[in-house]
Amino acid sequence: MTSPLSVIILAAGKGTRMQSAKPKVLQTLAGKSLLGHVLDTCHQLTVDDTIIVHGFGGEQVQADISEQYAHLPITWVAQTEQLGTGHAVKVTLSDLPKEGQSLILYGDVPLVSCQTLTALKSANTNGMSMLTLTVENPFGLGRIKRDEDGNIAAIVEQKDASADEQKIQEINSGIYCVDNALLHKYLPKLSNDNAQQEYYLTDIVKMAVAEGINIVAIEPEHTFEIEGVNNRQQLASLERTWQGKLVADLQEAGVQFADPSRVDIRGTLTPGQDVFVDVGVVFEGDCVLGDNVYIEAGCVIKNARIGNACHIKPYCVIDRAEIGAGVDVGPFAHLRPETVLSDNSKVGNFVEIKKSIIGYGSKVNHLSYVGDATVGTDVNIGAGVITCNYDGVNKSQTIIEDNAFIGSNASLVAPVTIGDTATVAAGSVITKNVDSKALAFGRARQTQKNDFQRPTKKEK
Amino acid sequence: MTSPLSVIILAAGKGTRMQSAKPKVLQTLAGKSLLGHVLDTCHQLTVDDTIIVHGFGGEQVQADISEQYAHLPITWVAQTEQLGTGHAVKVTLSDLPKEGQSLILYGDVPLVSCQTLTALKSANTNGMSMLTLTVENPFGLGRIKRDEDGNIAAIVEQKDASADEQKIQEINSGIYCVDNALLHKYLPKLSNDNAQQEYYLTDIVKMAVAEGINIVAIEPEHTFEIEGVNNRQQLASLERTWQGKLVADLQEAGVQFADPSRVDIRGTLTPGQDVFVDVGVVFEGDCVLGDNVYIEAGCVIKNARIGNACHIKPYCVIDRAEIGAGVDVGPFAHLRPETVLSDNSKVGNFVEIKKSIIGYGSKVNHLSYVGDATVGTDVNIGAGVITCNYDGVNKSQTIIEDNAFIGSNASLVAPVTIGDTATVAAGSVITKNVDSKALAFGRARQTQKNDFQRPTKKEK
Amino acid sequence: MTSPLSVIILAAGKGTRMQSAKPKVLQTLAGKSLLGHVLDTCHQLTVDDTIIVHGFGGEQVQADISEQYAHLPITWVAQTEQLGTGHAVKVTLSDLPKEGQSLILYGDVPLVSCQTLTALKSANTNGMSMLTLTVENPFGLGRIKRDEDGNIAAIVEQKDASADEQKIQEINSGIYCVDNALLHKYLPKLSNDNAQQEYYLTDIVKMAVAEGINIVAIEPEHTFEIEGVNNRQQLASLERTWQGKLVADLQEAGVQFADPSRVDIRGTLTPGQDVFVDVGVVFEGDCVLGDNVYIEAGCVIKNARIGNACHIKPYCVIDRAEIGAGVDVGPFAHLRPETVLSDNSKVGNFVEIKKSIIGYGSKVNHLSYVGDATVGTDVNIGAGVITCNYDGVNKSQTIIEDNAFIGSNASLVAPVTIGDTATVAAGSVITKNVDSKALAFGRARQTQKNDFQRPTKKEK
Repeated sequence: MTSPLSVIILAAGKGTRMQSAKPKVLQTLAGKSLLGHVLDTCHQLTVDDTIIVHGFGGEQVQADISEQYAHLPITWVAQTEQLGTGHAVKVTLSDLPKEGQSLILYGDVPLVSCQTLTALKSANTNGMSMLTLTVENPFGLGRIKRDEDGNIAAIVEQKDASADEQKIQEINSGIYCVDNALLHKYLPKLSNDNAQQEYYLTDIVKMAVAEGINIVAIEPEHTFEIEGVNNRQQLASLERTWQGKLVADLQEAGVQFADPSRVDIRGTLTPGQDVFVDVGVVFEGDCVLGDNVYIEAGCVIKNARIGNACHIKPYCVIDRAEIGAGVDVGPFAHLRPETVLSDNSKVGNFVEIKKSIIGYGSKVNHLSYVGDATVGTDVNIGAGVITCNYDGVNKSQTIIEDNAFIGSNASLVAPVTIGDTATVAAGSVITKNVDSKALAFGRARQTQKNDFQRPTKKEK
Repeated sequence: MTSPLSVIILAAGKGTRMQSAKPKVLQTLAGKSLLGHVLDTCHQLTVDDTIIVHGFGGEQVQADISEQYAHLPITWVAQTEQLGTGHAVKVTLSDLPKEGQSLILYGDVPLVSCQTLTALKSANTNGMSMLTLTVENPFGLGRIKRDEDGNIAAIVEQKDASADEQKIQEINSGIYCVDNALLHKYLPKLSNDNAQQEYYLTDIVKMAVAEGINIVAIEPEHTFEIEGVNNRQQLASLERTWQGKLVADLQEAGVQFADPSRVDIRGTLTPGQDVFVDVGVVFEGDCVLGDNVYIEAGCVIKNARIGNACHIKPYCVIDRAEIGAGVDVGPFAHLRPETVLSDNSKVGNFVEIKKSIIGYGSKVNHLSYVGDATVGTDVNIGAGVITCNYDGVNKSQTIIEDNAFIGSNASLVAPVTIGDTATVAAGSVITKNVDSKALAFGRARQTQKNDFQRPTKKEK
Repeated sequence: MTSPLSVIILAAGKGTRMQSAKPKVLQTLAGKSLLGHVLDTCHQLTVDDTIIVHGFGGEQVQADISEQYAHLPITWVAQTEQLGTGHAVKVTLSDLPKEGQSLILYGDVPLVSCQTLTALKSANTNGMSMLTLTVENPFGLGRIKRDEDGNIAAIVEQKDASADEQKIQEINSGIYCVDNALLHKYLPKLSNDNAQQEYYLTDIVKMAVAEGINIVAIEPEHTFEIEGVNNRQQLASLERTWQGKLVADLQEAGVQFADPSRVDIRGTLTPGQDVFVDVGVVFEGDCVLGDNVYIEAGCVIKNARIGNACHIKPYCVIDRAEIGAGVDVGPFAHLRPETVLSDNSKVGNFVEIKKSIIGYGSKVNHLSYVGDATVGTDVNIGAGVITCNYDGVNKSQTIIEDNAFIGSNASLVAPVTIGDTATVAAGSVITKNVDSKALAFGRARQTQKNDFQRPTKKEK
């Protein structure tokens, strides 16, 4: 039987240096709030309780997170005064079970990994485990002092460190796994009898050591896992580090990036084999790419599935679309939500598609708007064709059946159906259904006025 | 009473290694000529005289700069032969006041800051002050030799430096503030009795020291302030350094950049609170952004004001537009000069707007060209609508009043007025004014030819 | 008389770590296969025989390369088992001339330069020359051991290296120039009596030294010349290194890049004087730019010639187009193959041009598709004009003669000719030729229905 696991996330800081109206933990990294990263990661573990300590902008934090994480039972605890990290954990005590253990995490340390948290939890065999890191330049950080046997003896802050202690390179991350019994025992005893008059969480280490508890320390695989965010520079820097990690993992999986430092992945990218991603591409949400997908410069792709051997040409913007196999898109195509492009279809330049199905082998090659439409197989939609789906208040459907040919600059006024193998003449306005195999016109006869005198330049 | 201030800018170099038909000082960094940077910076001080020494391509320099800096009284002095920096300053003597002091600057050292120049001027209490810098690797640069009291004793060039002198890390920038009286005294005495047969400006240091003048040296805050440009690599490198500085300052002010190394600011960006700037965005000229402005990938924005809570989607090109609050633009929108988008309006994909006002809440969502138009509030302009504002010689106005609905693919032939709450049917060509509340048609009735035989493939 | 030159390229590796269905040597760098780079480089020399040893995916390699390099007489030799580099060369013996000398190269070491190969060949005065490199960190690489006279004595592999030998910084690239006579003599004697049971090519060095041959070693100018590719990270890293080299060379030639690290050149870029290239531009194939060409952000340009003083605005996609002098293009223009833009013409936003000639001074400024057309001089093509060049099976031509004016939203149904100085009214569908100077209409008369009741919101 495993011990119940609580997660305590400290998320009360203002983040003054962010110069923001938003609480710091709601700032976004890779398209997700800092606090959201922590929540997503720790809920890859089996968590019994999630307690978030909020403070500055607490209502906003609670509102945003509760909406996005409605599936998680979160206990919100307010820290009305900012009296230190020890105090922040202490205010959770009335909501913290007596049994089990707690991970203590930070809403502004977003990238701690599931593996690390699992290891930290497993390491807590003696009542307390902690995450430390050996760094090149420990200046300013709390050092992990160990006794002769290598056991943790104390955390020494920079200002209190002797010359020898300053040479210690193992530093404290502030992330712990602690038995709840110990938290209930130690936290009420914390004192703020110090220069800052704050309650320090690190004092629980002192208390544990005094009781002879051998605290186990583990190190994370990546430095970024314990990096916090206090200003815009740090946020941007951590973003780039994280992007580098995501890209390296995808390279390992066989994706070819033209420039690993010029791609952004804000969510999850699941690639097939032999995917190529050119410079300046941005992925958001959940994207799934088939084999041999070739994505050219500057595409912005969000929540899309793209089938095998698709070619996405430069500067396509794709949002919530499903694209079959062997489809060519772009350049300059805009696929909006609920677009389905069937296999071997083709969407060309300056084309917008919204909430429509384009059938197998059909083509919308130039300067068109197709919205609220169902397009059959092997249809050709000419340049400049518009589905007039909106009368100012209602949206209506356009149906174009198999093998139809829609001439250029035609306007299809929905609701309307173009029958299979029908032809719509160029420039026609179609307001009534067109029968199968028929040719529909809706345009005037051409006339001519000879020797026309062109307008001349007006005086201004 | 402050001493009158002259500025002498040496701008006579050819810059052979730039491989350019343009004089070096007209090469651009962050969208402005190198010389323009120097002029803009030193005119943040109160300057009484500006003397520019031109040489190679002097007419072009004079023409370009005189046009852009018509408000500055510039004295142009030709240096017809390239006989060294001392000679370049010497040719200004006949135009240089006898009283006051002079900053000696370089047209190819563009990024010296106003703060530094102010400090340099203040430091000139003894007749001469100079800008020096302590660098890691001083090789090749003139070293500042100091006496036992730490006073400047000499400038030693690399080739003349002893082993000990080569270890000196404080180097000469070439930028000085000197009393004009001293310039008038020293410069006529310069000699070109040296290997290069050049007149060196550094000799004035020697003369001052010989007279017992204690030259005060100050250092700039940033290394880039004294960096000169001699080839394309240096220019590009200085550009990136400068962009890094501008971005860091904006981060400090609270702007969130997705990637600080993938943004360009060629002018002045004045941000509101909680602005987000995605990758690949380019700002030019003067741009002012409101609070919560969200700018997506690849936008190119020039001389624009963008109101609070606007969302600029990927790949918008905006030039001299004024955008109200809560406006959505793009993706792929092109806003050309004299575009005004009122609050809560919306401009969608593949839309070009020029010299037009779009009223409150109005929408131009797809594939339209709106030029020379005044659009009222809550107007809906359908996909593919074109204002035909040009008859080949004259531009005319289109007026669309409040609540009008313009059907897709309509052509509005200006001059024309669409009355309030009027409706234009899809595909209509409108050449005459439409009355308020009326429905205007300009299209043929739909007809049909059954069992139409489609064209067949021609033999080639 | 020069000795005949063979080139042996080892191209049999699978490249398991690429996680690819493609053989490693077909992976692309700067738009060309790794093996293609080697072939192109060595064929800048005069080569008498080209022997490629293929193995994994050999058919695919042979098919791809034979198609692209049909002009080269390539001898394909299969290495059916992967028994080491020595074995790979050995299988070529039956195809290798007895006379002359051979360069031994690698299909996954793509960037060795022509200069280096020429030098290596010239250095082969004693029967064997080799390419070595002195590196900072030689760990893991074969060291070049030299005797007291500085002559090459042996290649020592990492695992066999003594502490002293591990300090040697000169390493073996694996690239050789060897007399064919020696290859015929040594290779049959290779043994696989070692831990890996492989035949090592390095053993030929041992044999040559044993015979008293003084092997001459030369070093390449750039480290990247001997870098191999084994995984996606290395491929991307080598791509960036190579791009840096291409950009530096172009800077040397006078091109100004806004950001040298944000441009990609996949082929050959031949610049005029004072070319400016903004951020995010991608060049592919052979591109030739005139003087004063100004290319803005994000353009993707392939196999294009662009004349003097052209201004290519942001986000143009250009493929196989020929652009005269003084032409403005974009933003958001798409020029497809066989587009010719004559001097002083102008193509604006959201315009696609394909297989068409646009005459001197003519304008296609907005939202148009021009395909299979010949446009004369000083023609104005209005916004939204479409050439209806496709009837579903056949493509037809549109001819627009000098000084014609095509009104907005007009559809020109090909085949059709618009005579010189003719005018087409806005919104017209033109199916018949228009006479010179005539005004052609093809649109309905405007009518109006007063007090029109707009649609109301339907219940859902």
